[in-house]
Amino acid sequence: MRTVYLNGAFVPEDEARISVFDRGFTFGQGVYEVSPVVAGKARNWTHHGERLARSKATARIADDTDWPAVIAELIARNGLEEGRVYLQVTGGAPADRDFLSPAGGVAPTTIAYTQAASILDDPRAERGLRVILYPEGRWALRGTKTTQLLYAVLAKEAAREAGVDDAWFVDGDAVTEATSANAHIIDSRGVLVSHPVDHGVLPGVTRLCLLAIARTMNLAVEERPFSVAEAGEAREALISGAGSLVLPVVEIDGKPVGNGAPGPVTAELRRRYIDQLCAS
Amino acid sequence: MRTVYLNGAFVPEDEARISVFDRGFTFGQGVYEVSPVVAGKARNWTHHGERLARSKATARIADDTDWPAVIAELIARNGLEEGRVYLQVTGGAPADRDFLSPAGGVAPTTIAYTQAASILDDPRAERGLRVILYPEGRWALRGTKTTQLLYAVLAKEAAREAGVDDAWFVDGDAVTEATSANAHIIDSRGVLVSHPVDHGVLPGVTRLCLLAIARTMNLAVEERPFSVAEAGEAREALISGAGSLVLPVVEIDGKPVGNGAPGPVTAELRRRYIDQLCAS
Repeated sequence: MRTVYLNGAFVPEDEARISVFDRGFTFGQGVYEVSPVVAGKARNWTHHGERLARSKATARIADDTDWPAVIAELIARNGLEEGRVYLQVTGGAPADRDFLSPAGGVAPTTIAYTQAASILDDPRAERGLRVILYPEGRWALRGTKTTQLLYAVLAKEAAREAGVDDAWFVDGDAVTEATSANAHIIDSRGVLVSHPVDHGVLPGVTRLCLLAIARTMNLAVEERPFSVAEAGEAREALISGAGSLVLPVVEIDGKPVGNGAPGPVTAELRRRYIDQLCAS
Repeated sequence: MRTVYLNGAFVPEDEARISVFDRGFTFGQGVYEVSPVVAGKARNWTHHGERLARSKATARIADDTDWPAVIAELIARNGLEEGRVYLQVTGGAPADRDFLSPAGGVAPTTIAYTQAASILDDPRAERGLRVILYPEGRWALRGTKTTQLLYAVLAKEAAREAGVDDAWFVDGDAVTEATSANAHIIDSRGVLVSHPVDHGVLPGVTRLCLLAIARTMNLAVEERPFSVAEAGEAREALISGAGSLVLPVVEIDGKPVGNGAPGPVTAELRRRYIDQLCAS
């Protein structure tokens, strides 16, 4: 049984319970991070920690947990070698439900747990992902990593029903991102095009590393929205995220991307990202 | 100490705890209802039950709880005479976090509790509410009553910081609704104008009753979006909701509505709504 971190204690996962008055449960006032774990170590923490601080500020959550220490202890207690570590911070549990937090505030609820997974040796890297397009309908502050994820859940369920792997959100005629990862293309000119980081998409940590790696490969990078039509003409398509790392997309809404096989540039980006991840 | 309903049991409120893996907590996959309680009886249940069924369908939550029986038992156990009863249903607690629900599904989490409050004798009905305008930024499916309420929390906190009572959301130049109530005006012609029920606003139960009452008063009713400018020219402004019933708005973004005092039509609508509520 896993050990879960909860409000300063390490407890068995079936004892990790929170109040029904928790503001993460009643109002979705919760923020989270997912970090990749390789060789028993959480990676990219600097970036995740910075984003967590920004998310907490936007969501009006105060929290001074020493997350690197918690994460290291959790990984050790669970003997995790490879996978992910998930953490969540909420507005805490007041005595009753009220949109407004009590004057003086309430202690945040802090949670973390590990998830074992083979993230380096992922069969999806060989076969590629098939995605559907899904109308963008999430809230305006998508640069903030909150637990208000129902719309992403609905899109993922629609993808499952369509027999594919995931969905890409479309706002007007622009692709914003995947349900839980950033979306990119290698366009018909060979340029890596990625939606800019603004309120429209999450500032992905893997995305940040990916674009830096692309530049070291002398790949042209354009941070701008790309259209569904451009994606249809692209040589390659790919996603980046803490769980998927870098994965090729081979089909969008039933149409093959490029020749329908995972692309060579994506494969090289994934290889280099994994090298960097293991060295970080 | 209150008794809380949780998954078929009635427990003391400090023992009402849910798993950290609950999908209402990790993904905001939760829907809710708030019903007014008068003279020890929950009111308008038919409408609340119908909306709950629609919310559950949209949020992909299966639940066959006999809510009228649960609510009656909860009111009796807590000796509630006047106030609100809150219920929430979530996607349940699987063994681990995953956007996709386990094949075969998982039992929903079901919660309800009472909140004592003087809803009939409300001093805000005499003094009126002051509101600020706040840019609309919630998700697209606002006709569904989900627990993804962080944006409403942020708007309410902004209103508190501005020293006023609440915020009205503005989409383009149209007012959509208040943070936890529907918004209406009696325009310069004396017409009750109310945003139509679509994806943009919650189909409020109190709103439904309010418009029916207005028609019995031979008040002209127009269900269409109204602009900020129209609100500025309005004779009266008001909100409707299960917690507030019908309340006058006397100031919008620092400008008085009409002569700055609660309006006579609003007062009559509130009086008739309360009569109907007590008789229902």
